[in-house]
Amino acid sequence: MPPVVTVTRRAHFNAAHRLHNPALSEAENARLFGPCANPNYHGHNYNLDVSVTGEIDPVTGYTIDIKTLKELIETHVVSNFDHKNLNLDVPEFRDTIPTAENIVVVCWRLLAPVIPRGRLARIVLWETERNLVEYTGG
Amino acid sequence: MPPVVTVTRRAHFNAAHRLHNPALSEAENARLFGPCANPNYHGHNYNLDVSVTGEIDPVTGYTIDIKTLKELIETHVVSNFDHKNLNLDVPEFRDTIPTAENIVVVCWRLLAPVIPRGRLARIVLWETERNLVEYTGG
Amino acid sequence: MPPVVTVTRRAHFNAAHRLHNPALSEAENARLFGPCANPNYHGHNYNLDVSVTGEIDPVTGYTIDIKTLKELIETHVVSNFDHKNLNLDVPEFRDTIPTAENIVVVCWRLLAPVIPRGRLARIVLWETERNLVEYTGG
Amino acid sequence: MPPVVTVTRRAHFNAAHRLHNPALSEAENARLFGPCANPNYHGHNYNLDVSVTGEIDPVTGYTIDIKTLKELIETHVVSNFDHKNLNLDVPEFRDTIPTAENIVVVCWRLLAPVIPRGRLARIVLWETERNLVEYTGG
Amino acid sequence: MPPVVTVTRRAHFNAAHRLHNPALSEAENARLFGPCANPNYHGHNYNLDVSVTGEIDPVTGYTIDIKTLKELIETHVVSNFDHKNLNLDVPEFRDTIPTAENIVVVCWRLLAPVIPRGRLARIVLWETERNLVEYTGG
Amino acid sequence: MPPVVTVTRRAHFNAAHRLHNPALSEAENARLFGPCANPNYHGHNYNLDVSVTGEIDPVTGYTIDIKTLKELIETHVVSNFDHKNLNLDVPEFRDTIPTAENIVVVCWRLLAPVIPRGRLARIVLWETERNLVEYTGG
Repeated sequence: MPPVVTVTRRAHFNAAHRLHNPALSEAENARLFGPCANPNYHGHNYNLDVSVTGEIDPVTGYTIDIKTLKELIETHVVSNFDHKNLNLDVPEFRDTIPTAENIVVVCWRLLAPVIPRGRLARIVLWETERNLVEYTGG
Repeated sequence: MPPVVTVTRRAHFNAAHRLHNPALSEAENARLFGPCANPNYHGHNYNLDVSVTGEIDPVTGYTIDIKTLKELIETHVVSNFDHKNLNLDVPEFRDTIPTAENIVVVCWRLLAPVIPRGRLARIVLWETERNLVEYTGG
Repeated sequence: MPPVVTVTRRAHFNAAHRLHNPALSEAENARLFGPCANPNYHGHNYNLDVSVTGEIDPVTGYTIDIKTLKELIETHVVSNFDHKNLNLDVPEFRDTIPTAENIVVVCWRLLAPVIPRGRLARIVLWETERNLVEYTGG
Repeated sequence: MPPVVTVTRRAHFNAAHRLHNPALSEAENARLFGPCANPNYHGHNYNLDVSVTGEIDPVTGYTIDIKTLKELIETHVVSNFDHKNLNLDVPEFRDTIPTAENIVVVCWRLLAPVIPRGRLARIVLWETERNLVEYTGG
Repeated sequence: MPPVVTVTRRAHFNAAHRLHNPALSEAENARLFGPCANPNYHGHNYNLDVSVTGEIDPVTGYTIDIKTLKELIETHVVSNFDHKNLNLDVPEFRDTIPTAENIVVVCWRLLAPVIPRGRLARIVLWETERNLVEYTGG
Repeated sequence: MPPVVTVTRRAHFNAAHRLHNPALSEAENARLFGPCANPNYHGHNYNLDVSVTGEIDPVTGYTIDIKTLKELIETHVVSNFDHKNLNLDVPEFRDTIPTAENIVVVCWRLLAPVIPRGRLARIVLWETERNLVEYTGG
């Protein structure tokens, strides 16, 4: 059996967001989210590391052609999130607070069904150079 | 005369912005700024490198105490820009488009008068890992 | 059941240390630790990545508020290690050689009991840009 | 039982390669590998993160002396790959396409037998800042 | 007069090269260039930082639209250098040794005439994370 | 005349230090240097970027062979500073407080006389990822 490896491609997008739960009072939102609840939004340069695990194809030496992976992330995530307001412009966050935790789960749901070879194994979302979230589909 | 060196402190802030000139038509704004004109805003993690040049004080070995420099950047820039919408929340950008070029000049005007020792020599603003702007006061 | 994700916060501290086992001869210490045994100490800028795994709270969209995680690392690790001599100033290393391996285990013991939501899942200590140690509690 | 940690050392090498399967037609190679099939080669600065897992030795505080790990990577990988053409100069790639996937598996086979303490747990090969492959021996 | 700032865009390309002066003996080439003279080539991930200095346009807030700068670098440098063998595939290096010094000067000659606003002020070429060359046109 | 470029090599060293002026009272030292005055020392991973400016040699394509530059930094700085206590082990800091400002000037004095081709143009010392000092010999 060929070896099984994990291939990762890093993508970027720049977006605005705010953290706010409409089911709670403004005071409660302020307490929970502090400056992240700013009604005028703030924003981030997000880095997104998408990892696919699978056997190495003996014909190509690839688990997945990383150009294919790059284009899938571009089509299904970056083109919808980049230079957007996550709360206002991205339907997936109409009823979901765009915390890093929820963004990474949304990215998983967008990408898992379209991986053509191997399986989506891990997504890491960097909200800043010091804050990141990782999801493996559980 | 003691040696003259340049001391740099890096700071961070996360903010939303859009690029839009109200004196121009929407079509012209779209042509000039493309996705950066999104009326719902997008955002960035900005890095700001602030450099002060001056003689080394023989008593302390410091040109400027970098803790002082850190606090000045915090007070005059970060506390006003971080987790804010630059267009809506920061008075300096009420009549100035918050391009990286204009942000770096605004930072200069906020910081140059308050440097207590040496002189402000250079500010670099990183809008993304690949886009940056540098200003030396000219 | 809500998705389970892993949230990571990166912290920093600057410290001096030396590697030396008092139960061994000086010759044996020199052989084992080389320049790291310098009796006058050397030092590092340590990066510490602390990861917490747990369900996303549907009310906040958080697994753990990363500001809370930041403050816990500050209180329990950084305030005790930063600008310190690990061998002389930190009681945990009175009888434990402050190798990267032992530092990461000490950090785990300091942080695991205080994580208020989810569970401590992984700590990574970067001693330099090229040397790191990872611990998952086993 | 002493705690079990994972120690990682990062190494570098600069090499040329091309992706080409001699069993396929040129047209098929061009379709599969695009510019990576350039018969004149292209190249990369590779980063290689080698991780060893094992109990902390109570005498040294080490799982594995990271200087030993550094020297093993130097001897078994870097000295054979650095400033080389992987296709022409490295026997392991005579019949194996030097994709990142295959390189990481070759590194594993070179290093796993020589780790003197603990066991080789993970190798990550960075082909660029945005493309990486990870192997855990499966 | 509007403020004068410097805008920088970072680009990437991956290429093979060797250092070899055909006017010298092989022994002399080996002495001068060591492993960099390998006749089978080696390679690098190059980073290229291109800086343009000029007044901020009061209408756009731009010195130069960084998307324009990105496309000029793509057209005049990256499309000709990326996934290429600098010695064999790039006419500019037919009679010029592709050292980092010479590459940065060639990039200057390709880019300086096409900058539409402001002037080319500095190019930095990173050959590795620790080796770089900077040129300001002198 | 051949083009004039600036070549930079990055080096590393890990060292302990403390900031303390023996001519001042302990109270004054504590006020000036805060935790940096810890009598037990703290430490850093220092990065040192050394830049040499000069004409490109038409025979080699080099301004200075970067391997030569690497070895000079190793011999004159790194071998004396790495895994050392700057205050106790390095004669240059016997009467000079090892602030980043003074370290960079000491590095200049050690390196400027030994550069064999071109001239030392700039040294940058990174004390942390956010604090750096730059010296051009003035």
